[in-house]
Amino acid sequence: VVKGRAEEPVYIWISDQEVEIRPAAHLWGLDTHETAAAIQDETDPQAQVACIGPAGERLSLMASVMIGGTDSRAAGRGGMGAVMGSKNLKAVAVRGTSKPEYFDRQGLLRSVRQANAIIRDNSLAMTQFGTSGGIITTEQVGDMAIQNWRLGSWKEGAPKITGERMAETILTGNYHCHACPIGCGREIEITEGPLAGLQGSGPEYETIIGFGPMCLNDDLESIAAMNDLCNRYGLDTISTSGTVAFAMEAWEKGLLDSEDTGGLDLSWGNTKSMIQLIEMIGRREGLGAALADGTRAAAERLDANSIEFAVQVKGLELPYHDPRAFTSMALGYATANRGGDHLETMTYWHEYGKEWPDMGYVDPPDKLSSEGKGKMVADFQNFMQVFNGLGLCKFIAKAGVGPQLLAEWTNLALGWDWKVEDVLSTGERTFNLKRLINARWGISRKDDTLPPRMLSHPRPSGSAQGNLPHLGKMLHEYYEARGWSEDGLPTPEKLEELGLSDL
Amino acid sequence: VVKGRAEEPVYIWISDQEVEIRPAAHLWGLDTHETAAAIQDETDPQAQVACIGPAGERLSLMASVMIGGTDSRAAGRGGMGAVMGSKNLKAVAVRGTSKPEYFDRQGLLRSVRQANAIIRDNSLAMTQFGTSGGIITTEQVGDMAIQNWRLGSWKEGAPKITGERMAETILTGNYHCHACPIGCGREIEITEGPLAGLQGSGPEYETIIGFGPMCLNDDLESIAAMNDLCNRYGLDTISTSGTVAFAMEAWEKGLLDSEDTGGLDLSWGNTKSMIQLIEMIGRREGLGAALADGTRAAAERLDANSIEFAVQVKGLELPYHDPRAFTSMALGYATANRGGDHLETMTYWHEYGKEWPDMGYVDPPDKLSSEGKGKMVADFQNFMQVFNGLGLCKFIAKAGVGPQLLAEWTNLALGWDWKVEDVLSTGERTFNLKRLINARWGISRKDDTLPPRMLSHPRPSGSAQGNLPHLGKMLHEYYEARGWSEDGLPTPEKLEELGLSDL
Repeated sequence: VVKGRAEEPVYIWISDQEVEIRPAAHLWGLDTHETAAAIQDETDPQAQVACIGPAGERLSLMASVMIGGTDSRAAGRGGMGAVMGSKNLKAVAVRGTSKPEYFDRQGLLRSVRQANAIIRDNSLAMTQFGTSGGIITTEQVGDMAIQNWRLGSWKEGAPKITGERMAETILTGNYHCHACPIGCGREIEITEGPLAGLQGSGPEYETIIGFGPMCLNDDLESIAAMNDLCNRYGLDTISTSGTVAFAMEAWEKGLLDSEDTGGLDLSWGNTKSMIQLIEMIGRREGLGAALADGTRAAAERLDANSIEFAVQVKGLELPYHDPRAFTSMALGYATANRGGDHLETMTYWHEYGKEWPDMGYVDPPDKLSSEGKGKMVADFQNFMQVFNGLGLCKFIAKAGVGPQLLAEWTNLALGWDWKVEDVLSTGERTFNLKRLINARWGISRKDDTLPPRMLSHPRPSGSAQGNLPHLGKMLHEYYEARGWSEDGLPTPEKLEELGLSDL
Repeated sequence: VVKGRAEEPVYIWISDQEVEIRPAAHLWGLDTHETAAAIQDETDPQAQVACIGPAGERLSLMASVMIGGTDSRAAGRGGMGAVMGSKNLKAVAVRGTSKPEYFDRQGLLRSVRQANAIIRDNSLAMTQFGTSGGIITTEQVGDMAIQNWRLGSWKEGAPKITGERMAETILTGNYHCHACPIGCGREIEITEGPLAGLQGSGPEYETIIGFGPMCLNDDLESIAAMNDLCNRYGLDTISTSGTVAFAMEAWEKGLLDSEDTGGLDLSWGNTKSMIQLIEMIGRREGLGAALADGTRAAAERLDANSIEFAVQVKGLELPYHDPRAFTSMALGYATANRGGDHLETMTYWHEYGKEWPDMGYVDPPDKLSSEGKGKMVADFQNFMQVFNGLGLCKFIAKAGVGPQLLAEWTNLALGWDWKVEDVLSTGERTFNLKRLINARWGISRKDDTLPPRMLSHPRPSGSAQGNLPHLGKMLHEYYEARGWSEDGLPTPEKLEELGLSDL
């Protein structure tokens, strides 16, 4: 835990057991790729560097912590980059040479290898086409966020931004995180046209939807460029794209004019303007100053009613799975501890058809219905607490890693005796702990809501046309399943049951 | 229209064509009964006096304008008393001796006499037992607000506070507004016990529910005393009782202690404390200072999360018809131009079973369903704009006065050629005009919502047990019926159609 604030910019260098705080004034202002390279030069070429870019330095609430230099893996959501920036902490670099000890190393390796084979078989499309391989389906199922969540279908645009199209055009290879059997990461290069020379990590599903249909942009190369910019500035691509789409709607509605934008034409799909706007956000310059903290803050700065189209929960922009197409996500977004966050829930996979026999979810429910989703969301949130807490990637969950395997791995690694119910009860305790922290900041039922656009603007076309989540009903079922009060707070009885009654 | 603010307290005296602004420093601080009597002494014993009490002088946002002295008729909702107070205007007194001229006086009188016979026949229970005659049914149908809207049934308490019980105990007569065939007004006297000596107007339905079940109080005599206090201070009984119930819940939850209350024990049903609290609110003293502007303002002053149980819309406390029992009222409250107001809608009567053949509403819908209520609420709001605008009493609407009769009376009075559709289109124009005024103050879709308690806390028992309005869906249907944008604003096309395109 890093406490306090350095007087001058610093970075932390951890080499095995040694921890050193080093000056970083010379790195201040560098982008995340430059920063990682410079720190590897100064420390160890194999050091892993987690750093912030200019956005984090300027305390953007959309600033991410970028990891792995040009690999551009991100701790993206919730503005953690601004936390580092506020501490004058440019980076944390780590190099360890010792190996972890396990209770049963051979057993663990054997189990992981077995799982890897299953994960690999279940993830062939992901390996081949990356996280954006399913975009045609996304559009067909009514899940795609289009024009700041206003349109219902985009049949003409969807084929132009898919993982398949990327594979046919700019893809040069795929990237594997350490020991991963999938390798969903994209490596791309643009060799022709105005963006020629762009090379590095390719955009992921969320980024493609965000800078694509959300902004009515079907130009995949421009999306790759925007992705690259966000990575370099250290900006969360979900929040940034949501904020760009918000600005475009404000432009359309005449709430922003070219004086506000410094001459940029923010018409839908204007990729040149989008690229410039991202730069302005990353540097908190011009209109970027009003947008750098996301849509909720921008709405407060621009015009009271623009909060109507600021699509966020508790200040965090929604990721690109439509809660009108997968109603469980309405509840998941409304109750996630970070705000508009899907990683605490992931129930849309079950609504899509994936079964979770470990948890008793073998009969996928109607994705458009608001019935019976309360307990389901609570159960998956509990599971995902442990899953995320172990630092695992959600795509192996999709490929089959459920609470049974988490228990098995934990037991093999630590010599414990966990069963599925221990995983879930630990997750429940974790979720309640986070909720208690939020409650100290004044969060309660009143904050567990969705933006107006999700509650009363149905999609006008497509498979999810006309559907609206009955959030109040789902919240009631959810609080009941959680054993919380109707005001969304853990009851003394629930805290007692979870061993948290001293909090 | 009264513009500006007098330097010293004044009242306005209008005698036929003469208008006089008179000093009122000697009336400042008097209650509404005293004020009306004093002004009648100074002007004309037959003058009609509309005045404020101490609450309006202290700019309470719950302050009403009281009319008719001891008859205690109120322009109750929305804090109009504070508007007069802010202008240093204690009263407006009027005495006119000329008669209005009508296009067809005989025809109008004949039509009104025919209607009066029907109204009288349809309102026998109302004449006998007043507005609180139906309280047993209110409880049975799941409509009764109990313990700040938390409980679902109150079978043991309901019989003790009905109009029938009032008739058996403290009722001494009934009061007719000018030329009214119903006479729902109650005259009461308490001759025994601690409240002996109380005499005057009796409490109405809303007042009885508010100071009764809302506060778990089944003592009708105490309710009569609270009603008298509110009338004298010039306080809206709905907002005041809602605020007292809010304070009682805050006490239960430990957010108020006896230091905050000046020693009052705000346990549910403590009538002695309730009476004292109303006095404190009327004088804006002690805890009354925090409560005098209603629940929303009180929640801001007390504790951020107490907004959870501040049952108001746009700052106005809900009247006592449960939107979980009559779902159309959810939509009506959310969209009424004054805030949590039932008088712009009145659709619960249709859901109860009353038919409106003039408007094509002959088949009452399922009162618990959220389907198909959008157009219905818009239509009834349009009707009620004209109905209320003509200064008519809603109880004659209940008894059978629909748009057909409004058109007929208008034509006879003014020589116009109105049909039902003219009444409704005039109402639509009026409603849109009010919405445009609200829009200038920043009102849009985001404000068309209900408090958390109505959206996700179902009634735990009784006939409406478990039901929650699907507000988002109803709002969508409503905006569509109104021809408004999804953000709840009149579109340019709609304004054009209504002849309001210059606004």
